Amino acid sequence: MFLKNAWYVACTPEEISDRPLGRKICGESMAFYRNVQGNVVALEDFCPHRGAPLSLGFVENGDLVCGYHGLKMDCAGRALSMPGQRVKGFPSIRSFPVIERYGFVWVWPGDPAQADPEKMPHLAWENDPSWAYGGGFFHIRCDYRLMIDNLMDLTHETYVHSSSIGQKEIDEAIPTTVNDGDAVITSRRMEGVIAPSFWKMAMRSNGLPEDVPVDRWQICRFSPPSHVLIEVGVALAGQGGYDAPASSKVSSIVVDFITPETDSTIWYFWGMARRFRPEDAGLTAQIRTGQQKIFSEDLEMLERQQRNLEEWPKRDLLKLNIDAGGVMARKVIERLLADERT
Amino acid sequence: MFLKNAWYVACTPEEISDRPLGRKICGESMAFYRNVQGNVVALEDFCPHRGAPLSLGFVENGDLVCGYHGLKMDCAGRALSMPGQRVKGFPSIRSFPVIERYGFVWVWPGDPAQADPEKMPHLAWENDPSWAYGGGFFHIRCDYRLMIDNLMDLTHETYVHSSSIGQKEIDEAIPTTVNDGDAVITSRRMEGVIAPSFWKMAMRSNGLPEDVPVDRWQICRFSPPSHVLIEVGVALAGQGGYDAPASSKVSSIVVDFITPETDSTIWYFWGMARRFRPEDAGLTAQIRTGQQKIFSEDLEMLERQQRNLEEWPKRDLLKLNIDAGGVMARKVIERLLADERT
Amino acid sequence: MFLKNAWYVACTPEEISDRPLGRKICGESMAFYRNVQGNVVALEDFCPHRGAPLSLGFVENGDLVCGYHGLKMDCAGRALSMPGQRVKGFPSIRSFPVIERYGFVWVWPGDPAQADPEKMPHLAWENDPSWAYGGGFFHIRCDYRLMIDNLMDLTHETYVHSSSIGQKEIDEAIPTTVNDGDAVITSRRMEGVIAPSFWKMAMRSNGLPEDVPVDRWQICRFSPPSHVLIEVGVALAGQGGYDAPASSKVSSIVVDFITPETDSTIWYFWGMARRFRPEDAGLTAQIRTGQQKIFSEDLEMLERQQRNLEEWPKRDLLKLNIDAGGVMARKVIERLLADERT
Repeated sequence: MFLKNAWYVACTPEEISDRPLGRKICGESMAFYRNVQGNVVALEDFCPHRGAPLSLGFVENGDLVCGYHGLKMDCAGRALSMPGQRVKGFPSIRSFPVIERYGFVWVWPGDPAQADPEKMPHLAWENDPSWAYGGGFFHIRCDYRLMIDNLMDLTHETYVHSSSIGQKEIDEAIPTTVNDGDAVITSRRMEGVIAPSFWKMAMRSNGLPEDVPVDRWQICRFSPPSHVLIEVGVALAGQGGYDAPASSKVSSIVVDFITPETDSTIWYFWGMARRFRPEDAGLTAQIRTGQQKIFSEDLEMLERQQRNLEEWPKRDLLKLNIDAGGVMARKVIERLLADERT
Repeated sequence: MFLKNAWYVACTPEEISDRPLGRKICGESMAFYRNVQGNVVALEDFCPHRGAPLSLGFVENGDLVCGYHGLKMDCAGRALSMPGQRVKGFPSIRSFPVIERYGFVWVWPGDPAQADPEKMPHLAWENDPSWAYGGGFFHIRCDYRLMIDNLMDLTHETYVHSSSIGQKEIDEAIPTTVNDGDAVITSRRMEGVIAPSFWKMAMRSNGLPEDVPVDRWQICRFSPPSHVLIEVGVALAGQGGYDAPASSKVSSIVVDFITPETDSTIWYFWGMARRFRPEDAGLTAQIRTGQQKIFSEDLEMLERQQRNLEEWPKRDLLKLNIDAGGVMARKVIERLLADERT
Repeated sequence: MFLKNAWYVACTPEEISDRPLGRKICGESMAFYRNVQGNVVALEDFCPHRGAPLSLGFVENGDLVCGYHGLKMDCAGRALSMPGQRVKGFPSIRSFPVIERYGFVWVWPGDPAQADPEKMPHLAWENDPSWAYGGGFFHIRCDYRLMIDNLMDLTHETYVHSSSIGQKEIDEAIPTTVNDGDAVITSRRMEGVIAPSFWKMAMRSNGLPEDVPVDRWQICRFSPPSHVLIEVGVALAGQGGYDAPASSKVSSIVVDFITPETDSTIWYFWGMARRFRPEDAGLTAQIRTGQQKIFSEDLEMLERQQRNLEEWPKRDLLKLNIDAGGVMARKVIERLLADERT
């Protein structure tokens, strides 16, 4: 129940070494490797000879060689050669469109003819030295839509992340949710509050006082298939909040690329892009470590929620105003899924 | 295939701390916590908001708060409050009748209207200082009826527990089995035998000689839904056995409360209530340790028996005279299950 | 989808000690033990009393006693005795024909009436002191036919075992495959090649130069149900290869007895029988250790291939000339399976 005609983050470039990487994306088992030009290739992880996983093989001059009996494939999924065999009549395997961008390897698990690079998300910080980025990823046993719900309703921060980014005022601030084409945007503003510990650290890192009232904002933007970018920040109170001058605020973008593995498991790529002190690698590492700890607090909740929903499959869930972001995102997905079927 | 309209042991009071306890009882996932009066409450472990398990939440002034987005439930399973929301129309979740007694938390997983406290088992040692009690519990992957069979046919002691409570004479003593209303009683008496090691220890602890012939008895009493209390003891030979004067015998009650988790798994609460040296906490601990070791000897047998029965589902089992207790207990259960369906 | 009327290796004699051994062979759970004559007996691992696994029991004077309630079985699967019971009417359980030979315990999981000892494979090295044997076994999660394929197409050595027995020339030498009754023989000869490391060690051990060209051969012989014996060796180049005089060659037989446990798991008994320096126990141990390491390299490939074939159940595999051995072996199996059904 996920879109297949879309760009998904498959892995980070560092995960592809001399040995291919085997990973299932949207139900498709793929082998990732680099060809002779250094471009990442994704083939079906199934050798047409005897069905061995190609990801157990090796790369020779940019071609993927099956590690069982040596069938060599080209990057289009055609058999290139095999010792002592003529391979002309061999069946091909699928090759999946791949783009390497923004520090990720993106793959299109659906119809290759529709794999338009223009459909890639546009991220502000590409090739812009005023930004810094750090992140990581988790494997989680839940439906990808539970993770979208999680990110489009940040009131959970008050409960799940109470010691870092949660604060009572999040619950009390009514969010607004709107459509923007296929995107869904949920916004929340809190004025004159004391920053929670994560943001105190960020203000301190940025030379701002940490114990004065701030205006805080969270602008969650879902875009299909399952990407959520969240503009977050705090400004000294009364200076315009989100629109305050750069010198009196700290802001960043929480980056969430959710990639279904199966109907009930995901690869979750998370990170933070920030505009302050981008040259400070130590700060990048510190934020990454903090974010990893915070985001790992969601794992048990998501996996247990998944199991609960499997146990009570017929139970309706509530759709409150705080859930509007997730609910509207699901409607977009439903509509695009219907398109994809026809 | 278990009775739902019955009192089952769910947990011990110590298992419920500041955090709720999540446990499945008779197929129902429940969250246990204490309300403001200190009484244990059992709610369905499913938040009506988004399906998160309530047992991952926390207790605030005696109310259970969901750890995901803060929905607060009352002890009847009704939504009490949620930050920024009106909860009037929220659906309720089930609340299960609970009684705390005899050192256990008891729950009624079926129809609450039938949850009569009078249906609780009556245990002689409640509030009687001449008794002492110690016990523990196991999680076992077997049908609860296999555990009833186990406890209603103690000839297995000769084989499974040969080094502690088993002795050849158990096999040789013909048991008698009778119904007593919905209860089933299997009795066995062995006269003029040498006590096995566990009972030697008990006699020694009680100031009796351990190397003289004794009369030994085992009176197993099954009562629905799946409770088995076993009167066991030894008396100096020829002094009346079970009816011998207190000064020449040692006796106790083996306590077995079997709670189905699913059709093929159980929570097994075991213990021993004794009438001798009740003030001796060291002896209680010693007996408890010994019993834990002995009862753990059954685990592999029960779990492997369960797997065997799943592998050979159509095979009939024998019903010998030693099996009469288990067989008659199953008949009582069948009859009550038929009642429950109508 | 395996033959049941056939002799399979069940275990090694050392696996049967005072306690019975429980093992599933071709879908049949069996308990193996030695009777009073010292012969191995295989009974259904299911006590006719209450279904407990007999392999959790013990052996008393050569009879198997159930460890739950003491039912004693004879070696034909009939109830012999039970404390306090008359066992005349007890149902019998199955007894499986067993032969102990060649250092293995063989069992016939099908119709006992057809269990002709003449159908046992005949191994040259039985009771012949000019041979030595060493081996071991693995449990592998794959269809037994994937292991037959593996052994009947040794081009995989070049890829899976590149550091020990693989070499490029294997791929380049065209094999020939022929039927011999129900057997299938795939042969390959490589002339004037440099021996790979395993064979250099064997030549050195046998007093031959290790850095001169050799003629190498591999003659794989499949016979039903799933046995593969492989004659392998090297001779100093130009001296007749397989037919060279004993003083200028080193040869051995790779022994592979594949026993299905279920449709997708196997017990794989591997070993090597050699004709050189049979008295050298240190060499036997060294070869065994080397072979264990080499054969363990196949495990991940076979298990992942199995999972891939389950994931793509409808995909046809290629049948190249190198696959002829496996393909023809499967045809023999299919034919015999059809016979077995009628």
